Amino acid sequence: MKLMITGGGGFVGARLARTLLKRGTLAGERIDRLVLTDIAPPPVDLLADARVEARTGPLLAQTEALREEPFDGVFHLASAVSGECELDFDLGLRSNLDSTRALLDAIRANVNAGGKVPRVVFSSSVAVFGPDPAVPLPKIVADDTLPAPQTSYGTQKLMCEHLIADYTRKRYVDGRAARLMTVTVRPGRPNGAASSFFSGIIREPLAGVESVCPVSPDVSHPVSSPSRTVDGLIAVYEASRDAFCGRTALNLPALNVRVSDMLDALEKVAGPAVRARVRFERDERIAGIVANWPSGASAARAARLGLHPHENFADIVQQYIDDCAALPNASETLKGMS
Amino acid sequence: MKLMITGGGGFVGARLARTLLKRGTLAGERIDRLVLTDIAPPPVDLLADARVEARTGPLLAQTEALREEPFDGVFHLASAVSGECELDFDLGLRSNLDSTRALLDAIRANVNAGGKVPRVVFSSSVAVFGPDPAVPLPKIVADDTLPAPQTSYGTQKLMCEHLIADYTRKRYVDGRAARLMTVTVRPGRPNGAASSFFSGIIREPLAGVESVCPVSPDVSHPVSSPSRTVDGLIAVYEASRDAFCGRTALNLPALNVRVSDMLDALEKVAGPAVRARVRFERDERIAGIVANWPSGASAARAARLGLHPHENFADIVQQYIDDCAALPNASETLKGMS
Repeated sequence: MKLMITGGGGFVGARLARTLLKRGTLAGERIDRLVLTDIAPPPVDLLADARVEARTGPLLAQTEALREEPFDGVFHLASAVSGECELDFDLGLRSNLDSTRALLDAIRANVNAGGKVPRVVFSSSVAVFGPDPAVPLPKIVADDTLPAPQTSYGTQKLMCEHLIADYTRKRYVDGRAARLMTVTVRPGRPNGAASSFFSGIIREPLAGVESVCPVSPDVSHPVSSPSRTVDGLIAVYEASRDAFCGRTALNLPALNVRVSDMLDALEKVAGPAVRARVRFERDERIAGIVANWPSGASAARAARLGLHPHENFADIVQQYIDDCAALPNASETLKGMS
Repeated sequence: MKLMITGGGGFVGARLARTLLKRGTLAGERIDRLVLTDIAPPPVDLLADARVEARTGPLLAQTEALREEPFDGVFHLASAVSGECELDFDLGLRSNLDSTRALLDAIRANVNAGGKVPRVVFSSSVAVFGPDPAVPLPKIVADDTLPAPQTSYGTQKLMCEHLIADYTRKRYVDGRAARLMTVTVRPGRPNGAASSFFSGIIREPLAGVESVCPVSPDVSHPVSSPSRTVDGLIAVYEASRDAFCGRTALNLPALNVRVSDMLDALEKVAGPAVRARVRFERDERIAGIVANWPSGASAARAARLGLHPHENFADIVQQYIDDCAALPNASETLKGMS
């Protein structure tokens, strides 16, 4: 089978690619070809796999050619992140809404030409939820909570959920939208996402670097480890249409955790000296965005697919440490633990 | 003040235009100029008013010029209807989604150039609601019922609700989305809307013509008279931001009525011979679409703006008869009553 991962050079996309290549199959079929599109090339270990083909550049510029290239399945993860979309309104519309529509239309052109209807897993986000004066936000957002996005990013993700549902209804794609929780711990450098600090307050102290937490320790948030997020995307792909249940989006599993719990877990795994590298300095812009996010999420439909979150945040910290230890630059990313 | 009504040549748009011109003011300001855009010219009585300017052609082709033309307020009613959108997927996306976005971007260009932020009332639709295996549809859909559209039309309306909410959050427009119920009794000929028969089973018998009802007499549906629909759009425009409450869409008032109740009302107003002109002949395509519509709607937020539906369908039939009687061709549209 031939698969595509848009955003395949990113953190979640590359991890998904590695997981798929290691499994070798998806939904019972052998993976012969894995196309990774992204604005930057994927990591070298992926490029070294003969099954991988990397296509570098904006997705929108690649969709015209995709009209004549059939795929068995697509994981559509490519996206501009929340902070970027707040700063550049047109970028968000182009990268998130226009690219998704152009991708769906490319697939539709294939299907209209007699091709097979491919499965498309779309990474939506918990950012679709938010408070509105007319719609109080529940503490825990469920699969069927009414979305009221408070960012352009969340708005665009929600619009794409509905777009994909309609292309699915018309049988142009077999689409499944899954709302990712905040994935943590992300490696590398802070990115433009307002949620970036949820990784930074763990990653930086472990590397021996001070980290600033821009919100109160009482802030609670639904997070997911990278491995459980990837497991979720694969399970959503492999689910039968009936098991996925309907065309509305589902929440992927969340561990609902307070910032203070995250730091307790960091201390438990790595010691008090590491935790002491986090200081609190309120950033009104970030705190304002985060205040509009739900403090937790439930995921009943994902649970019926056998998906569950990690039970505690210490396991997520440990996953990050184990992942780093396996990398060539482990001494750099974990030098704070020495 | 300078206003625009997109879809200003259509039934609701022209009635809104007449009502506004008769009032002479909106939100306390004098109406000096009323631009009506539509694919067809507006009725001659509107063209005769010196305040009216008609612009004929697709809205999408007009938006580029609108980038340099400020308006105090816009009623955005232009839309391809549900039946058309099911038959021509691209038409729906272009007429409903692309046109709305281009209109919003034209307004944004004005605002970015230092113009005033105009009020924009968007006519969404009860068609945003529908059943999904994961989300059972309540019998009565409320303002905060989770939408799960079952048509491209409903999907595009819902996407535009969220697009407008985000442009409003960014202060590019002061947007308010109001979900219209099925407006009945529409004059003229059947249109491409799947809901067209909700007018046809009243209009045709009154004109002495047989009418076929494609669904069971037990089918219940939320309807609204033309006058209450127009009153609703104006009240939503005039509401303060606080009174509108939030950025999510609200339902306009609905009279929840069964087809059999509609025919009872027709008989009460116009007699049994008129009612006898309706026969039932199931149309699977129409019945299938209608089966996915809610059987009723509530409108708590609209009620707080002082808006209420007609209390019985006989009043709506009488409104249609009175409207027709005032027209030059009354003898034609009501010849079935003689």
